[in-house]
Amino acid sequence: MAAAEEVMMLSLVGLGLWDEQDITLRGLQEARGADLVFLESYTSRLMGLNKKRLEELIEKEVKEADREFIESGRVLEHAGEKRVCVLVGGDPMVATTHADLVLRAKERGIPVRIVHNASIYSAVCETGLQAYKFGRSATIVFWEDNYKPTSFYDVMVKNKELGLHTLFFLDLRAHENRFMTVREALQELLEISAERKDGLFTPRTRVVAVSRLGSPEQRIAYGVVEKIMTDDLPPLSVIIVPGKLHPVEKEFLESLL
Amino acid sequence: MAAAEEVMMLSLVGLGLWDEQDITLRGLQEARGADLVFLESYTSRLMGLNKKRLEELIEKEVKEADREFIESGRVLEHAGEKRVCVLVGGDPMVATTHADLVLRAKERGIPVRIVHNASIYSAVCETGLQAYKFGRSATIVFWEDNYKPTSFYDVMVKNKELGLHTLFFLDLRAHENRFMTVREALQELLEISAERKDGLFTPRTRVVAVSRLGSPEQRIAYGVVEKIMTDDLPPLSVIIVPGKLHPVEKEFLESLL
Repeated sequence: MAAAEEVMMLSLVGLGLWDEQDITLRGLQEARGADLVFLESYTSRLMGLNKKRLEELIEKEVKEADREFIESGRVLEHAGEKRVCVLVGGDPMVATTHADLVLRAKERGIPVRIVHNASIYSAVCETGLQAYKFGRSATIVFWEDNYKPTSFYDVMVKNKELGLHTLFFLDLRAHENRFMTVREALQELLEISAERKDGLFTPRTRVVAVSRLGSPEQRIAYGVVEKIMTDDLPPLSVIIVPGKLHPVEKEFLESLL
Repeated sequence: MAAAEEVMMLSLVGLGLWDEQDITLRGLQEARGADLVFLESYTSRLMGLNKKRLEELIEKEVKEADREFIESGRVLEHAGEKRVCVLVGGDPMVATTHADLVLRAKERGIPVRIVHNASIYSAVCETGLQAYKFGRSATIVFWEDNYKPTSFYDVMVKNKELGLHTLFFLDLRAHENRFMTVREALQELLEISAERKDGLFTPRTRVVAVSRLGSPEQRIAYGVVEKIMTDDLPPLSVIIVPGKLHPVEKEFLESLL
């Protein structure tokens, strides 16, 4: 991890879940040692992050990096000449686009370093649901008038068959400041189930909605869909459709009722 | 997150993947503000952690907490009177035993706070494999002469059917300083497949073995089982049996060959 002598470098540093206090000591050191620091602002958004406080902490300017800057390869032009640090919400490699970025960096012979941090993937265990009982995860996407994908629902169906929990991420368009609400997401699931008449997801289905996990404002709500839909949970949120519950999982969820 | 006024408190603070530099600023603040700090030493082990350096960082003594101390409820007797911080490798709630601990604390009216950190669950995306394409995970357990469970293998079979990746944790007995090696784990998988004659896991099957992820010594090895078995990968390690690969995943893994 120590390579202060490197002249070219791309480091992806995870920021964790909420604000600038979630950076690790290793990540902070990495950012402070960089020539240029960017904040990747399109795959996720830390709702508690204050850019000015982040800059004070890192002791240098932090520039915003949008999708075009990252995916066009412009970030790699910098990293081919200098030590470049890209700060990313959560754990950096969870966003699929960053695997591609790392690959392109390697092709150019640019050393890459990843500093991991908390991700919603493991943090959801704060619901009492056990990590090894989650099946595949999926994202509930914004529907358009003529584009209503349902593949995320099929993921839940498969997981349910196996007794597994399903973690649903909710779509976001960070650049438009648009974040899917829990209510919108549940509405889509209800519509798909009603359309298919499969009875798998109804207003009486019990779900877990988790909002702003890892923050002072965090909310973990458990209950039937029709009740959760009356709750104004602020973004970012995720939804979990539980599978078969272990007794401790059940007790934990019921302690939230 | 700020509650310095609390007189009783249980906080579980994640330490991340490798050493004391992986703590977050929030976690460090939490530990420094506690009356008593324990290091949970049985669900995981940070191989790079130096207790003395950790104590210097936290500015107080760190006591080891074994399974008996946590599970007997003795830790809660302290937390009912003081601010107690338990440091845990990875992301604290991933270890199922901690869900039970939190539940018991709530029953006693002890406020609980979780400080998340990196977990191997999301960190494995550093292999280029995409988080949403992992199915259920499982642990490959030590076999005894008369106890050879195979349920972890069934998890892989189900995932393979769905085209999903399987993350395997390797068994550990931290108190005996005994950690399953990648070779031992692969040997068990080979034996099960040979016994069942299912052809699903052979010396020619391609797997990913990841050792000491997030450390300066990290190794990500990709290749056929018979080759990976010749490699002495130090603990802690995990194994991934890939499912159907997306082109970027394939390109990423092949860049490791």
